[in-house]
Amino acid sequence: MSKVFVNIGLSLDGYMAPEGMTMEHWGTPEYKNWGAKWGALMRWMINTQYFRENLKFGPGGETGPVNDMVRNTMERIGANIMGKRMFEQGEASWPEEAPFHTPVYVLTHEKREPWVRPGGTTFYFINDGVESALKQAREAAGARDVRISGGANVIQQYLNMGVVEELEIALAPVLFGSGRRLFENLREPGPQFRIDNVLDGPAATHLRYVRQ
Amino acid sequence: MSKVFVNIGLSLDGYMAPEGMTMEHWGTPEYKNWGAKWGALMRWMINTQYFRENLKFGPGGETGPVNDMVRNTMERIGANIMGKRMFEQGEASWPEEAPFHTPVYVLTHEKREPWVRPGGTTFYFINDGVESALKQAREAAGARDVRISGGANVIQQYLNMGVVEELEIALAPVLFGSGRRLFENLREPGPQFRIDNVLDGPAATHLRYVRQ
Repeated sequence: MSKVFVNIGLSLDGYMAPEGMTMEHWGTPEYKNWGAKWGALMRWMINTQYFRENLKFGPGGETGPVNDMVRNTMERIGANIMGKRMFEQGEASWPEEAPFHTPVYVLTHEKREPWVRPGGTTFYFINDGVESALKQAREAAGARDVRISGGANVIQQYLNMGVVEELEIALAPVLFGSGRRLFENLREPGPQFRIDNVLDGPAATHLRYVRQ
Repeated sequence: MSKVFVNIGLSLDGYMAPEGMTMEHWGTPEYKNWGAKWGALMRWMINTQYFRENLKFGPGGETGPVNDMVRNTMERIGANIMGKRMFEQGEASWPEEAPFHTPVYVLTHEKREPWVRPGGTTFYFINDGVESALKQAREAAGARDVRISGGANVIQQYLNMGVVEELEIALAPVLFGSGRRLFENLREPGPQFRIDNVLDGPAATHLRYVRQ
């Protein structure tokens, strides 16, 4: 059966996104310096060959173990689940060929027909909650895995449901000071993880945890 | 010149101490399960031969790279600085031969004569602030290094002063859900660190950052 996993970038002080990185300030990345902070957080990924290719940034980019990891992560995904805010930010940023190449289940109150993009990505807008989204994502994923893509609030809900089997964190050596924390609102007792693997990259430490 | 460094255990969700771990509940570690949580956080250290020897827990314990790291960390310290809460908890817990073997500068409003313990630890009670404590600690440390021992609030003050040159974090795969966070109240722009070394232990991932 397919696995449910999280794979995100995290600042050393625990933020998934810096303060100011909202739709309101999407066109002004200098607002509270959010653009530079986000770039520092995701530098490990932005520089990879796979990411550049997937986002249509052109040729070049780093190869090696981090690039291989990014490619393996993307290739194991059969369906994505994301929150409304992450979708809206992406809608304003992704190339026409959105970089998922799978069904994507967007948790939202908005009623909207599925949005088919070239390259295999179709966004489905789910109005009946996290469990329904997970059920549909599992069915769509088949033998491949379901990624809870974000944002923080959506990941927290799935952590609290106890369904996240693998937690992959690229811990970047940056301090944001404020923003959206990943680990908040966790129910007690929380899920239990053990260290599965650590990949020591130059721009982030790639921590992989597996549910106990 | 001696370096100023931090070396702590941190939960995956960013807490240095679980909720309930206060003097009020020191005798009841089952309160909010703080004792078990603390034990899980510090398991990487508690099991080492060096820690057992230093705390007079008796012979035995793990040898190997984590034990060597703990020993090297302790041996580089020429002076410690800690907050009043950490001192009070330790005063109620340490053996007579307190486990520092250096001068320890305790930040407090309490006026108290230096407290000399067997084995080389003397506690000095500092009433005139963090800069004074650092100055005295540097002088006492000589060629060895100054450790900012904790708690979270004290480390935050020294991070905000920009004097912390090395940040060593043992990141344990535990989620506390609540407690005292290390990374809070950081001034903007915060200090800048780069990844220096990663030691992949079974009970924690040992992350070493150096100031840029």
